[in-house]
Amino acid sequence: MSLASWNDGAARTAILEFVDRVSEEGGADYVPPAERVAVLDNDGTLWCEKPTYFQALFVFARLGEAVAAKPELGEQPVVKALLAGDLAGAQQYGLEAIAGVLLQLDAGRTTEEFTRDAAAWFAAAKHPRFGVPFGELTYAPMLELLDLLREREFRVFIVTGGGVEFVRAIGEELYGVTPDDVVGSAVQVSFERRDGRIVLVRQAAMLGSPNEGPPKAVNIQAHIGVRPIFAAGNSAGDAEMLEYAHTGDHPSLCLVVDHDDEDREYAYESLAATNADAEPILETASRLSWTVVSMRDDWSRIFAG
Amino acid sequence: MSLASWNDGAARTAILEFVDRVSEEGGADYVPPAERVAVLDNDGTLWCEKPTYFQALFVFARLGEAVAAKPELGEQPVVKALLAGDLAGAQQYGLEAIAGVLLQLDAGRTTEEFTRDAAAWFAAAKHPRFGVPFGELTYAPMLELLDLLREREFRVFIVTGGGVEFVRAIGEELYGVTPDDVVGSAVQVSFERRDGRIVLVRQAAMLGSPNEGPPKAVNIQAHIGVRPIFAAGNSAGDAEMLEYAHTGDHPSLCLVVDHDDEDREYAYESLAATNADAEPILETASRLSWTVVSMRDDWSRIFAG
Repeated sequence: MSLASWNDGAARTAILEFVDRVSEEGGADYVPPAERVAVLDNDGTLWCEKPTYFQALFVFARLGEAVAAKPELGEQPVVKALLAGDLAGAQQYGLEAIAGVLLQLDAGRTTEEFTRDAAAWFAAAKHPRFGVPFGELTYAPMLELLDLLREREFRVFIVTGGGVEFVRAIGEELYGVTPDDVVGSAVQVSFERRDGRIVLVRQAAMLGSPNEGPPKAVNIQAHIGVRPIFAAGNSAGDAEMLEYAHTGDHPSLCLVVDHDDEDREYAYESLAATNADAEPILETASRLSWTVVSMRDDWSRIFAG
Repeated sequence: MSLASWNDGAARTAILEFVDRVSEEGGADYVPPAERVAVLDNDGTLWCEKPTYFQALFVFARLGEAVAAKPELGEQPVVKALLAGDLAGAQQYGLEAIAGVLLQLDAGRTTEEFTRDAAAWFAAAKHPRFGVPFGELTYAPMLELLDLLREREFRVFIVTGGGVEFVRAIGEELYGVTPDDVVGSAVQVSFERRDGRIVLVRQAAMLGSPNEGPPKAVNIQAHIGVRPIFAAGNSAGDAEMLEYAHTGDHPSLCLVVDHDDEDREYAYESLAATNADAEPILETASRLSWTVVSMRDDWSRIFAG
């Protein structure tokens, strides 16, 4: 059965009706397969993002090691706070200072080395509350949704505020999404030759803006080149991506995952990481009549693992 | 039969042997499908690029119209030369000045309007020598090669120095390549709301460097995220892309299309558009033992149309 982990309800019905409508040849709302593009946020939409973004945990885990290799890193107050596990203290120095540390950590690594680093961490690390590898904390109902979209000839893309190379390292295994179908925040790389090989080397600087808010729509154009007709997110940083899908010429479906299940996952409001003043996503959803997915009520099962 | 328009010879054999080698499970050179990434240049590799890039013809065709709408454009000396059909005269002002004109032409158009403009031109315009629509001037042997690669579970990408949105407008129809699988030179777009819709509006500025030379390797990482194992090109601007594939961990095949058929197409040396001093691609091919495809000797048929 399609969407087996979804309880009967408005969200499940909206999804099933939408995929039927756009794929029914000859129907008034038919959309040709070439334009069936689906974009989904990752953190908090396809997998858990608490106690903090898994990518942040990846970075913190490697910070001690990095300071041993580059002692000058450890002299920065923000790094001292991070090493002491004092996330609130580190946040006093601002998101940019924290991001700067992360960028320095991997500067000089080739993109291929970084991918191996990330994959190795995923294979070994465990979630602090659930005690399982992070790869088991994808949402089973969302994996079923990806399957359904592909069955109906959608091309499925992850459009994440996370680092594109971090998410690519696990996208195929967890979601069946190949690296070319991941759009995310990116760092600059330099073109170099090492030992007779061309390699691309990560720099301590971002390439453009973090992929959140309006940049999600801009980067969908840069990487995908087609306005989506399906979009799913969970935070205020996803609002423009959903509105971009919503305001196209075709019928569209916009889903907002509401984290309202403290027992099985977490209960919280998902803010935009880079814009604390953005309208709460549930208000945007209400204003634009998007479909809200209650984790508590709409999902009979949470995690795939 | 695979590669039906290819004559028996070293090039055809090299291709057939390569796709067999990398797709034979259990073989020493087996490459998993996830890493079977093929990248191909467009102008001069998948279709004709003479008497000049087809995208330049698209732009010249619309210049008069654009000057009527924005008379200040017509006062620029480079535009006067272009309007008079004096390409050599225009080139005296430099490639940047010409590019600047092209960028101004479409500034203010949404990405969706631009796509419609390009598709309309393709549907109507004809090649000055061959008298057929430009879409008929793809190379039949290369289309067969794309089919063969896909049969062997390669993911096929166009990596072009041309404008990404221009090539996307025809990529699916001509090559079966969807817009998300085209990597090219890009312009900046702004995020705007017009009449209650989010639109992306082209600006008169490029996004990064033209997609030629080292940027082809960098943009393959940015958009595809996997080092290719197959690469094809025809100009000095493709050398780094081919060398990037060539210097990976897996077996690779690098093809260079040699335009040596004046009767059926054109005979010329393909320079890099942005670096006249680059090593000629046939010398690079010889130095690195890449496979050279003679249009005259290796192809029994040239055009698909």
